[in-house]
Amino acid sequence: MKQPIRVALDAMGGDHGVAVTVEGAARLSTEDRPVRVLLVGDEAQISAELAKHRYDPAWIQVVHASGGAIAMDDKPQVVLEGRPDCSINVAARLVRDGEADALVSAGQTGATILAAGKTFQRLPGVRRAALASVYPTENRHGPRGDPFALILDVGATLTATAEDLVGFAVMGSAYANVISGTVSPKVALLSNGTEANKGTPEIIEAHALLSRPSALNFHGNVEGLDIPRGTVDVIVCSGFLGNVVLKMLEGVSEVVSDIAKDAYARKFLWKLGLTMLSQGLRQLKTMTDWKQYGGAPLLGLDKVVIKAHGRSNARAIRNAVKVAAKAVEGDLSGRIARGMLEVRGGAPIDPASGGPPPAG
Amino acid sequence: MKQPIRVALDAMGGDHGVAVTVEGAARLSTEDRPVRVLLVGDEAQISAELAKHRYDPAWIQVVHASGGAIAMDDKPQVVLEGRPDCSINVAARLVRDGEADALVSAGQTGATILAAGKTFQRLPGVRRAALASVYPTENRHGPRGDPFALILDVGATLTATAEDLVGFAVMGSAYANVISGTVSPKVALLSNGTEANKGTPEIIEAHALLSRPSALNFHGNVEGLDIPRGTVDVIVCSGFLGNVVLKMLEGVSEVVSDIAKDAYARKFLWKLGLTMLSQGLRQLKTMTDWKQYGGAPLLGLDKVVIKAHGRSNARAIRNAVKVAAKAVEGDLSGRIARGMLEVRGGAPIDPASGGPPPAG
Repeated sequence: MKQPIRVALDAMGGDHGVAVTVEGAARLSTEDRPVRVLLVGDEAQISAELAKHRYDPAWIQVVHASGGAIAMDDKPQVVLEGRPDCSINVAARLVRDGEADALVSAGQTGATILAAGKTFQRLPGVRRAALASVYPTENRHGPRGDPFALILDVGATLTATAEDLVGFAVMGSAYANVISGTVSPKVALLSNGTEANKGTPEIIEAHALLSRPSALNFHGNVEGLDIPRGTVDVIVCSGFLGNVVLKMLEGVSEVVSDIAKDAYARKFLWKLGLTMLSQGLRQLKTMTDWKQYGGAPLLGLDKVVIKAHGRSNARAIRNAVKVAAKAVEGDLSGRIARGMLEVRGGAPIDPASGGPPPAG
Repeated sequence: MKQPIRVALDAMGGDHGVAVTVEGAARLSTEDRPVRVLLVGDEAQISAELAKHRYDPAWIQVVHASGGAIAMDDKPQVVLEGRPDCSINVAARLVRDGEADALVSAGQTGATILAAGKTFQRLPGVRRAALASVYPTENRHGPRGDPFALILDVGATLTATAEDLVGFAVMGSAYANVISGTVSPKVALLSNGTEANKGTPEIIEAHALLSRPSALNFHGNVEGLDIPRGTVDVIVCSGFLGNVVLKMLEGVSEVVSDIAKDAYARKFLWKLGLTMLSQGLRQLKTMTDWKQYGGAPLLGLDKVVIKAHGRSNARAIRNAVKVAAKAVEGDLSGRIARGMLEVRGGAPIDPASGGPPPAG
């Protein structure tokens, strides 16, 4: 039997802290296909919380971190200076030192990115790590027909050079392949027109670089329209643009949800209407709930890092740990490294080389 | 009685050409508060179309343009070279020469911007013209409670300097004031965080410039979340970003509409549900129809230019002409010119100076 995958979970991170991280780990420990979770944080708090849940101690280990948690409104830089033993730093070191295979945190995004960035190495050929996020789409993706696509960067960078965008394309393609099982994910640049000459100079240059023969299934440029439609599996853009797009999707889902709630509260007849429409509205409602699915990977480092949403519940934490384990099993980092090598060479692919996306 | 406002309408422009432009002008001519419309294009086609409608000839004049129409897939540059007498060029010259007060076209956006840009002058202090668009929001705006806000630039520029963004803020504020009657429109920069130091260098610098005392009601930065919510009356961004945002809103409205249609067609019970929910859904449906409201102003030139949507029907054309007339009556260009002078000076406002937004 092969060695089980071990995930270091920042037990203190997230809006609900140990209450949901411990519950998520406890639930997972009693499932058919558990993952070994290292709960990193204040030992007393974690133990007290563990006592409230049924769990299998064979799959859970508590690792004490004496430096407490990073609060959502702390400056991210505190992870670099002054708080060496906060839970996210201790969890990252466990991964660096080979005591765990992947890092998961629902804590502050900036602090997580900084802690991972200073503790792990960038993969060869990767200039900058990128944070990716799934988002809901009308079209379905991958062999399971997921109603989600991937967009990156959504906040690890601000601006992006053409080379950065090419790297994001490689990393996003590898992730969609490993996590969704999409054999040859369609990747596109987000621009203000589909033609090769549309966009900022960086986008136009990235378009040219990505148009060279490679293992990537490059779809050219897509427009804003294509985001909710889900025309492609992976959308590539600067972190600034990705941040605006992602928050806008969040805003749209809030508005849809407000309107539905409003209708629901105001009139009894509407309640009936809502019930009848539930199947149609469920599709809209996935937009409200999609943050609960698996978390956002930080791509481009030599270790797997999954940033779960701050508002994660126990189920979302459990999902993020599962996704992290899947990324380790699927050799995400190796795939990205090979893909970067191949795309930077610009050489035609050798189908046997295993660069992303591999044929299967 | 004061001189009636005269609008030069590119009768050939838009997906439906003379069929809807002529009908729109005809309808308006018989209303209580008509606007004088110069229908510019192929005289024979326009006359044949006019014969199909009831109209008041006192308010309609046909001006022949021998150069035909610019097709949606023509290169925009043809308006500069080779097609001097196409309808959009002839209409723009009528405005330049004082025979009309404003230009309206449902034709190709690029060609309209180029024709206006070469024929009209930029207002003093305006570095670059910007195309603005209304879009649907959850919050209401202005004294009439419009469920719309304004975003610019959405496509006249690609990137924007800090000075360009300041100009867009002035122009958007003046437009919201004149058209929606909002006394002191809230204006904000679109960024990846609300703090003053968030965003690209251009945005951070524009934030500093706009934070100086002025007649503008500057709200700081807003995020993607604030777009559908409608936190502010006017959102300012680069043309690249505005294009992505606007097309994304269009995509979301299409997806919502697809889901509703799908539900409607598939199950009879859902039909009942839809009817009951109609008030709630109407709010969502305005997202599908909002392109019909009034068109997009090209701001920063010495003449009023309204770009109606290519898919405009007769009602949308009529609305665009009314908006153009309102902008002329409200002295939009004068307000923008005064606003640019004031904001560039950076001096504290004299409330009597009439810079935008004026107090009433």
